[in-house]
Amino acid sequence: MKARSKLLDFSPLYTDLYQLAMGQAYFLDGTAQKPAIFDYFFRTIPFQGGYVVFAGLEILLETLENLRFSDDDLAYLKEIGFRQDYLDFLKEFRFSADVYSMPEGEIVFPLEPIIRIEGQLFEAQLVETLLLNLINYQSLIATKASRMRLVAGSRLLSDFGLRRAPGPGGLLASRAAVIGGFDSTSNVEAARLFNLEPAGTMAHSFIESYGDEFKAFQKFVEANPERAILLVDTYDTLRSGLPKAIKAGLELEKKGYKLKAVRLDSGDLAYLSKRARARLDAAGLKQVKIVVSNLLDEYVIKSLIEQGAPIDIFGVGTKLVTGVPDAALDGVYKLAMFDGEPRMKLSDNITKTTLPGRKQVTRFADEQGCFMADAIHLVEEKLPDRMFHPFEVGKSLELKNYQAEPLLRQVMADGKRLHPGTEIREISTYVSQRLAQLPPEHKRFEYPHVYKVGLGLRLYSLRDELIKKYRNNFEGGGP
Amino acid sequence: MKARSKLLDFSPLYTDLYQLAMGQAYFLDGTAQKPAIFDYFFRTIPFQGGYVVFAGLEILLETLENLRFSDDDLAYLKEIGFRQDYLDFLKEFRFSADVYSMPEGEIVFPLEPIIRIEGQLFEAQLVETLLLNLINYQSLIATKASRMRLVAGSRLLSDFGLRRAPGPGGLLASRAAVIGGFDSTSNVEAARLFNLEPAGTMAHSFIESYGDEFKAFQKFVEANPERAILLVDTYDTLRSGLPKAIKAGLELEKKGYKLKAVRLDSGDLAYLSKRARARLDAAGLKQVKIVVSNLLDEYVIKSLIEQGAPIDIFGVGTKLVTGVPDAALDGVYKLAMFDGEPRMKLSDNITKTTLPGRKQVTRFADEQGCFMADAIHLVEEKLPDRMFHPFEVGKSLELKNYQAEPLLRQVMADGKRLHPGTEIREISTYVSQRLAQLPPEHKRFEYPHVYKVGLGLRLYSLRDELIKKYRNNFEGGGP
Repeated sequence: MKARSKLLDFSPLYTDLYQLAMGQAYFLDGTAQKPAIFDYFFRTIPFQGGYVVFAGLEILLETLENLRFSDDDLAYLKEIGFRQDYLDFLKEFRFSADVYSMPEGEIVFPLEPIIRIEGQLFEAQLVETLLLNLINYQSLIATKASRMRLVAGSRLLSDFGLRRAPGPGGLLASRAAVIGGFDSTSNVEAARLFNLEPAGTMAHSFIESYGDEFKAFQKFVEANPERAILLVDTYDTLRSGLPKAIKAGLELEKKGYKLKAVRLDSGDLAYLSKRARARLDAAGLKQVKIVVSNLLDEYVIKSLIEQGAPIDIFGVGTKLVTGVPDAALDGVYKLAMFDGEPRMKLSDNITKTTLPGRKQVTRFADEQGCFMADAIHLVEEKLPDRMFHPFEVGKSLELKNYQAEPLLRQVMADGKRLHPGTEIREISTYVSQRLAQLPPEHKRFEYPHVYKVGLGLRLYSLRDELIKKYRNNFEGGGP
Repeated sequence: MKARSKLLDFSPLYTDLYQLAMGQAYFLDGTAQKPAIFDYFFRTIPFQGGYVVFAGLEILLETLENLRFSDDDLAYLKEIGFRQDYLDFLKEFRFSADVYSMPEGEIVFPLEPIIRIEGQLFEAQLVETLLLNLINYQSLIATKASRMRLVAGSRLLSDFGLRRAPGPGGLLASRAAVIGGFDSTSNVEAARLFNLEPAGTMAHSFIESYGDEFKAFQKFVEANPERAILLVDTYDTLRSGLPKAIKAGLELEKKGYKLKAVRLDSGDLAYLSKRARARLDAAGLKQVKIVVSNLLDEYVIKSLIEQGAPIDIFGVGTKLVTGVPDAALDGVYKLAMFDGEPRMKLSDNITKTTLPGRKQVTRFADEQGCFMADAIHLVEEKLPDRMFHPFEVGKSLELKNYQAEPLLRQVMADGKRLHPGTEIREISTYVSQRLAQLPPEHKRFEYPHVYKVGLGLRLYSLRDELIKKYRNNFEGGGP
């Protein structure tokens, strides 16, 4: 990030009220500063896909490092009924936890702790909402973007989503899109803030203001020779826009300009792109590229390419920045240790029971570097040579002869970052490298093969013990 | 709004690159300051519903009034290739258009101009992306919220969505939720900024940190007597959480505290709420309310109520703030007049052709105040007594004997607001009054009756003329 934006300058009040109410109880009870460990993980992969791209870490760390209660913050909390002695405590607050995380851009799977926060109970609890808000959305969008990148091959992908993005969430959508594999964005503020490639074409209103397409095209290119992309569907693509773009392109060439592309924004994009390519080529404008937009998603892009549509650049908006159909990643943040003791949430449904203890995730890869399985295990547990299915009793997998890579590494000590920020392009390159290591059967859209995530034996046993202990505690406790 | 938040302090770079590129062309061609009129409207009602709640206007107007290019903004634009003479022009920019709008909270329908901006071509074009970004999302969420309000009756609705909200978009989600009919939000920053009621309960981690539910409940209520809501499903709702909450409630009563509610966050909410109500009543805790959460939406809320579930408060998160399944309102912003002449975009599909000219929307209501039809007509056209179906030839509706109400009113002159900001509660009250005037057949979830929106005769004729004119222009223009 080149500069911190005020648009992302979150105060500690950017949270759920209950974090502050629980904090007041911890403060009064003297437990606020006792040690706690929380894990961030998700349960369901969106888009019926086989993986998630973890995104948002850099923004989170920067926010945590600068989190302070201002006098205005405290005045508002007083107004809504918080106690003065607690507000005095908040006034001194700074985030001082140790943070362990997978790298931003990691390919991640359900149940795995992706971020682990070890700090005082108060601070670790307070940041839950902020963390979930930043990581869930960006990971959702980066994952959606990566699916389009997988089918687009080397064709260019540009984010055109700001107008349909969820308010200021659009800033992070553009960032996450590039992490997931997009080349550029129309969002100028995001481009500035995150050092992304800004991109754009022209609007129908530009043509309409001139009435005459030919004149509008000339004026646009002369004013913006570096962005000479012409929108050809304002009145009629094949009968008006395209022939006039060709005429303008040829005239502009004589004046030393180069037409870069034409853009199709309606109609049948496969049919129109083929017709446009043929006419451009026949006119000697072989270098002019074809940009398409209009309700694209990974399925439409895949279909257009399968139909042989000669499209060079896809502009994607609504379906990228909203992450439909899911529109949310179900990431959660759960207590795993408190005051030196493992903790967990029970549930009638074992799949919603949380994993207790201080945990690491180790990824196992074969000789070619292909990801084979991830094991979640206690940090102090020696590297497991066998992992157990998290829910199905008796199912286990041997982990011999694999390369083992621990995924969670310390990124913050005492609330300070251990490394300078990572540029988006580096994160995006990491995503593409790691996705290349994921076997193709996990990347297909239809019923992808489920990537194996299991538990080390000691973690598995710890969970069992705790379930028995809690159940014993309340057996007979009901009325 | 109590104070402007830096989180919403958008710069003019919060836009699509093409707005600035087109601006450069307008600037060089001398058309930047010629008069233009743009309309904001949408085409499709989300959620297969019968209406949309218009939201976001106050934030938009405040942003427009303060829009300036800072030196940093200009330096970045220089870096990405914009011309110095254009940057000098931008340095002097302030938004100076006249804005006409329906009131925030109006019940609106497809095709209707909801906002009309009359200004210089440059300024009116520049703000397109900002306007769409702010209005589309907030209107989507306010509409979703209003659907839950319709089924919830007088029960309380609380927004718990920040953790699944799209990054900083969550601020506006909470605002829009209250506009649409929610009572409160867990989002402290939004509550402060928009003067909303903050609300919250407690997290599973609070219980887990104590291990013992009874002790956790006591500690929480003693620290937060005004927010005495206890989460009872951490280990086992009926065998552990609920009996311990009852025990804690009775003990706390002796100490002068009042237990306000218990919260159910998993399991079958109809079954559990009935069991919880019966046990609370049997223990003499009739005043203790029941809060439920967990993947609620308007359909689940409706079903719970139909099942007679004794629920007092619904906490809604993901499905509120994401606006699923649509996740976007398809609002667009189109040129209607330029330099005194009507303009439009053609399309092979008449439903995507835009409406030219300077337009008003008049709403017709019967004697009881029930909304019967809306007519879109030219401002200078006398009040129509008949309107025409916008797409189906030969279909028209007589508009006699109705009360007529013009919906678009001037809200900004020369870039300055004509009225002080409206409090959210006033907007929310307006929504509820206006929804009460909308006949029930437009509010049902299944195949709602389509509200009648038609065109005045002069507008209808103008569109026809322009279509013919444009078609003549390019007939024979193709190769």
